[in-house]
Amino acid sequence: MKEPVEPKGGRLQYAMVGGGRGSFIGPVHRAAIRMDDLADLVAGCFSRDAAANAQTGAELGIESVRLYLDWQQLIAAEKGRIDFLAVCTPNDSHYPIAKAALEAGINVMCEKPLAISAAEAWELERLAKRKRLLLGVPFTYSGYPMVKLARDLVKRGELGKICKVVMEYQQGSFRKIDFSKPLDKRNAWKMDPRRSGPSCVVADIGVHGAHLIEYVTGLEIKSLAADLSSFAPGNKLDDDASILMRLSKGAKAVMVTSKIATGEENGIRVRVYGDKASLVWKVEEGNYLHVKEAFGPERIYKRNAPYIAGLSAVSKRCSRIPAGHHEGFIEAFANHYREFCAALRGAKGCDFPQARDGRRTIQFVDAALESSRSNAKWVRV
Amino acid sequence: MKEPVEPKGGRLQYAMVGGGRGSFIGPVHRAAIRMDDLADLVAGCFSRDAAANAQTGAELGIESVRLYLDWQQLIAAEKGRIDFLAVCTPNDSHYPIAKAALEAGINVMCEKPLAISAAEAWELERLAKRKRLLLGVPFTYSGYPMVKLARDLVKRGELGKICKVVMEYQQGSFRKIDFSKPLDKRNAWKMDPRRSGPSCVVADIGVHGAHLIEYVTGLEIKSLAADLSSFAPGNKLDDDASILMRLSKGAKAVMVTSKIATGEENGIRVRVYGDKASLVWKVEEGNYLHVKEAFGPERIYKRNAPYIAGLSAVSKRCSRIPAGHHEGFIEAFANHYREFCAALRGAKGCDFPQARDGRRTIQFVDAALESSRSNAKWVRV
Amino acid sequence: MKEPVEPKGGRLQYAMVGGGRGSFIGPVHRAAIRMDDLADLVAGCFSRDAAANAQTGAELGIESVRLYLDWQQLIAAEKGRIDFLAVCTPNDSHYPIAKAALEAGINVMCEKPLAISAAEAWELERLAKRKRLLLGVPFTYSGYPMVKLARDLVKRGELGKICKVVMEYQQGSFRKIDFSKPLDKRNAWKMDPRRSGPSCVVADIGVHGAHLIEYVTGLEIKSLAADLSSFAPGNKLDDDASILMRLSKGAKAVMVTSKIATGEENGIRVRVYGDKASLVWKVEEGNYLHVKEAFGPERIYKRNAPYIAGLSAVSKRCSRIPAGHHEGFIEAFANHYREFCAALRGAKGCDFPQARDGRRTIQFVDAALESSRSNAKWVRV
Amino acid sequence: MKEPVEPKGGRLQYAMVGGGRGSFIGPVHRAAIRMDDLADLVAGCFSRDAAANAQTGAELGIESVRLYLDWQQLIAAEKGRIDFLAVCTPNDSHYPIAKAALEAGINVMCEKPLAISAAEAWELERLAKRKRLLLGVPFTYSGYPMVKLARDLVKRGELGKICKVVMEYQQGSFRKIDFSKPLDKRNAWKMDPRRSGPSCVVADIGVHGAHLIEYVTGLEIKSLAADLSSFAPGNKLDDDASILMRLSKGAKAVMVTSKIATGEENGIRVRVYGDKASLVWKVEEGNYLHVKEAFGPERIYKRNAPYIAGLSAVSKRCSRIPAGHHEGFIEAFANHYREFCAALRGAKGCDFPQARDGRRTIQFVDAALESSRSNAKWVRV
Repeated sequence: MKEPVEPKGGRLQYAMVGGGRGSFIGPVHRAAIRMDDLADLVAGCFSRDAAANAQTGAELGIESVRLYLDWQQLIAAEKGRIDFLAVCTPNDSHYPIAKAALEAGINVMCEKPLAISAAEAWELERLAKRKRLLLGVPFTYSGYPMVKLARDLVKRGELGKICKVVMEYQQGSFRKIDFSKPLDKRNAWKMDPRRSGPSCVVADIGVHGAHLIEYVTGLEIKSLAADLSSFAPGNKLDDDASILMRLSKGAKAVMVTSKIATGEENGIRVRVYGDKASLVWKVEEGNYLHVKEAFGPERIYKRNAPYIAGLSAVSKRCSRIPAGHHEGFIEAFANHYREFCAALRGAKGCDFPQARDGRRTIQFVDAALESSRSNAKWVRV
Repeated sequence: MKEPVEPKGGRLQYAMVGGGRGSFIGPVHRAAIRMDDLADLVAGCFSRDAAANAQTGAELGIESVRLYLDWQQLIAAEKGRIDFLAVCTPNDSHYPIAKAALEAGINVMCEKPLAISAAEAWELERLAKRKRLLLGVPFTYSGYPMVKLARDLVKRGELGKICKVVMEYQQGSFRKIDFSKPLDKRNAWKMDPRRSGPSCVVADIGVHGAHLIEYVTGLEIKSLAADLSSFAPGNKLDDDASILMRLSKGAKAVMVTSKIATGEENGIRVRVYGDKASLVWKVEEGNYLHVKEAFGPERIYKRNAPYIAGLSAVSKRCSRIPAGHHEGFIEAFANHYREFCAALRGAKGCDFPQARDGRRTIQFVDAALESSRSNAKWVRV
Repeated sequence: MKEPVEPKGGRLQYAMVGGGRGSFIGPVHRAAIRMDDLADLVAGCFSRDAAANAQTGAELGIESVRLYLDWQQLIAAEKGRIDFLAVCTPNDSHYPIAKAALEAGINVMCEKPLAISAAEAWELERLAKRKRLLLGVPFTYSGYPMVKLARDLVKRGELGKICKVVMEYQQGSFRKIDFSKPLDKRNAWKMDPRRSGPSCVVADIGVHGAHLIEYVTGLEIKSLAADLSSFAPGNKLDDDASILMRLSKGAKAVMVTSKIATGEENGIRVRVYGDKASLVWKVEEGNYLHVKEAFGPERIYKRNAPYIAGLSAVSKRCSRIPAGHHEGFIEAFANHYREFCAALRGAKGCDFPQARDGRRTIQFVDAALESSRSNAKWVRV
Repeated sequence: MKEPVEPKGGRLQYAMVGGGRGSFIGPVHRAAIRMDDLADLVAGCFSRDAAANAQTGAELGIESVRLYLDWQQLIAAEKGRIDFLAVCTPNDSHYPIAKAALEAGINVMCEKPLAISAAEAWELERLAKRKRLLLGVPFTYSGYPMVKLARDLVKRGELGKICKVVMEYQQGSFRKIDFSKPLDKRNAWKMDPRRSGPSCVVADIGVHGAHLIEYVTGLEIKSLAADLSSFAPGNKLDDDASILMRLSKGAKAVMVTSKIATGEENGIRVRVYGDKASLVWKVEEGNYLHVKEAFGPERIYKRNAPYIAGLSAVSKRCSRIPAGHHEGFIEAFANHYREFCAALRGAKGCDFPQARDGRRTIQFVDAALESSRSNAKWVRV
């Protein structure tokens, strides 16, 4: 197993906003950072509830003086003392927190969606650029080594000209809810336009799909026609979407994404068809990548196998253990932090999703909402 | 293994048009009929080429006096002597042959697409009804026992209210063509609008998808928005399609179908999501049906397993050998003939695709073409 | 789809012993023969029960004068009138029927196990040779095109030197029996030493495994150490076996085979490890063959795919429909009849299991029984 | 995601012997401990080479005064200062290091095999017991949540009486070696009887299989008959094994394990057949567990799914993220440390492999060696 080397200039230090008790993604950030022993969590604002905040802080070994009840305080106090801020709050606060942190000169890793509107995302992207700060958006799935391999195979021309992409992200999470009872905290904010923004499924998971299309193919989503639905009882936001897309260079794409796909856990499946070969990646068998050709047997590439030659350096360094010993979600997430932290230390060519990726996916969300409001007419992204 | 019983009233006799040397589907019809020893082939018009016709006739043991060089002669001469006619020619002649046969009082099993336009299909449907004749259209995949099980599970309410269908029929056949050489006979007519009609991929395989959606869910495709493409070099017809659909009772659907999906052999995958459960059927693992729920383990039903209770009689009789011993394409095809021949002998409740199914799928093709010409606007089916 | 050509010298004609109502394998033989329209069933002795025999005969369209109540009569009367006899009775009568038929100059396709003891099998093998008659034993699984591909890959050296074979044939059929009630006919004779012979699972399905090992690798099973068990209530014969084997040229093998493997339908899985590559074939995914190497991606070969070059002619001709359209059990069985009938007509190089294969597998059964009686000591095969 | 709570009594501290540059398993221990932020690495003896030791120490942030060039020094100096010692050296030194540490009052997590002989393992087990110290042996695979589910299903009687176990652990690692060159460090010691002990494949990976059999079924391996082979060029130790086993309560088992199984990465597959149901677990699809019955559909249980009711508390707490987000090798390893560290803090009912498990597997290795030397005669374990 490969471990990163302890940095010369001392250890990195970070703070977190959100990610308290009951949060799914906050602990994932922390575990991902610990995976490679990249940085120490030194400050936090985990909850607006004082007791909960104190408890999480204590559990995580944070000094009580570096626990804050609002993120404004945290940014004011920690400015200049931390290397980066991890933002793990609900969607509506991503933009103001990221903006304030960047303005205070703090690098940011911000959960997706980066903002509620493309305009906000553009602003953050420009701000980070002007401040020469890093603004990462951890779209987990482009952190999987086999997705990086997929990207590299496309880049090397092994698929030929890309013609069609079929993207799926199917969840059945809204089918696990008992709608006769009050919603739990996590589902409640996801269905609440004030916290979640104007989109639910597209903004929550469709953005992963949009990111993967652009990441793997290197093409841009130019326009789309979207048919969004709300099937879950009482849900006012989209919980199912079917989207036609036209990509740059004449390619086409389809996305299906849903939170009402009963029985699906986290069904991400990427298929890219070129005129020479096609590839399939499924997160559920995420350590494998299938490549098919017209005139040869289907090939199954295995993560970190010795025969995978000619790949980019980043593809190689984003795998810790040998083929056969599987890596999963946390490792993929950790790859983004590994690259982010390397970039913080000045490395070049680091591969992690940044403000541009965050902004592209919000343009995608905006276009999908606009299209669906107009009965799936084509809208430019 | 179950065998059908030798009929009391003597054996059935049939004739075939098309299906000579180099045909894919003609021999499939013949093998499917032989599978259950249902009928004897007694006459044919296998090719317009006299020598080829004579050779096929000899190979199949047809008396030379019952070999015909055009189908008009066959119908004129065999009228009253055969129980049914199998039509295995290219698309453009389905309508005239089926029409002439029905007018001559002959039952017909006609390859899909039943006609080039919905108007023609409507005419055939009405003609068969008026003449009280059977007009079957062997959409192979609804002959698979596990597709019948899927239909039965939906009908019994095990999936709850159907919300979403994801249908795929992905082939890479046009990626196996060397376009620098003259096309072989089969590909040539499929790309030729005069033989194939105005659609290629949608009319050739998309119709299977449309049929499966309506067969499995019992819902109707009410409208669609289609984005058709021509990716193969020089191809004037559609060879790739992405189609959004709205079904009856508020359900939605997506179809992707292609002949340029490099490396795909015959990738039919049906997913139906209800509010209680979902199901997945893949022809490549066609002896299995997966059912998923929100709160239970995924279940894999196996063809002809003893525990599959409460199914329709037809689901049960359409399986010949025990679970574990796989059945494939020919058996599925044979199921349609088994039901068709039982209906010929007067049985009730036989389950095979008929004129209505053929007509519905052509309405689907027509709508897809119209929609795509108008940049994927919604069109009623 | 490929069809065989109608033979010049008139159609073949065959008779069957056994295979009446409730038989599994009799109808499989008949369907397999019909698959390619190879021969007509003209005579039979389907049951010792007169009414049952008459009924089956009527259903199959056999003239009543060619229906016989014992096989001795059939052989006496049909001698010189039929091209071959299909023997589909329980194990104990295979030897006497095959012997009598061969002595009467009739070619035989006899169900496995060819005999109850190796001595009997040797006798039949020598008799067939002396009489210059064909004696086939339809071990279904070597009829699968992908098993023939496996054999060809080994023969061509693509796996290098074969070191290890892992063979499984797991059924749970005895777990579907309600032992509190009288056994049905088929299970009754399989557990009855007088009908089944001294072995149950090894003689019934283990022989398929032994045949596949020798067929695919081209090696011989030289010795074995077997641990047989009887787990089903009241069963006096073996219903579970684990067998270590030493093959020629220093290779080793293991077989697990069972009738008490709850939930298994027909779990045949063959794995062959050479020093250059390995292969995996599973009947449940029988249209595929996986090949793995140390330094390349895993490859999935697909039945009848255009890229499968350099194979023996027999591998090519034993596939009817294109890749993507699956073939199953009946097609595999039909391949043996296709080859058998071609040999009957004088073709050379036909590939179907013959008396030697039947005899080898019975030597295997005898050795397994002897070994297990001696606490799994090594016994020469 | 669930995170453990920061301990009341301050953080745990540990030291490591072995696990320097080029080690596979040392970094896995460290990452597993970091996964849940369980303990801090404060001292080490990573290599006998001073420069290498210093470098690893520096990379891991160890104070130079707590870096030791031999393990005797480490134990002498760290006695009383650390909570546990992780032993990650080659096989031959496990026993002396673990013994010395226990004698010094230090809890130990020692890599498998716990010792070279059963006698040594017995001694360590008794020593740990007498000293009331924890001696863990991290057999990774019993740390997988779905293996714990398998164990729980067996314990709850869902499989009925266990009859047969089929265990595989197939690697092709020795096929990746270029034997024309000097072996790399890791392979060199694995093939060297002085470092590895008298067994290679059985001691290195067969022990995982033996542990899994006993862990999942709750039965004991009572006797075995083993056929070991050495196929790799120049290898003096076993690199392939086929082993028949008799378990307590009349069950039987087979194991195949190999390092010459070309193309296999880490093929662990556990199948347990009871008279009511059977189960299958494959590490390559380690987030799933398949359960099959005679009369119901096959069921796929998914890690951390909400419907998995009635499981032991340990099964529940050994899963961090929701179904659909996969966990892998490091998480499984981390589960052992999570339980080990909880036990260190006094928790009851912790579930991690201990000295008894380590000793049982070495008895298994000893018996396999003895049996194979006597041509696979039965030997008591």
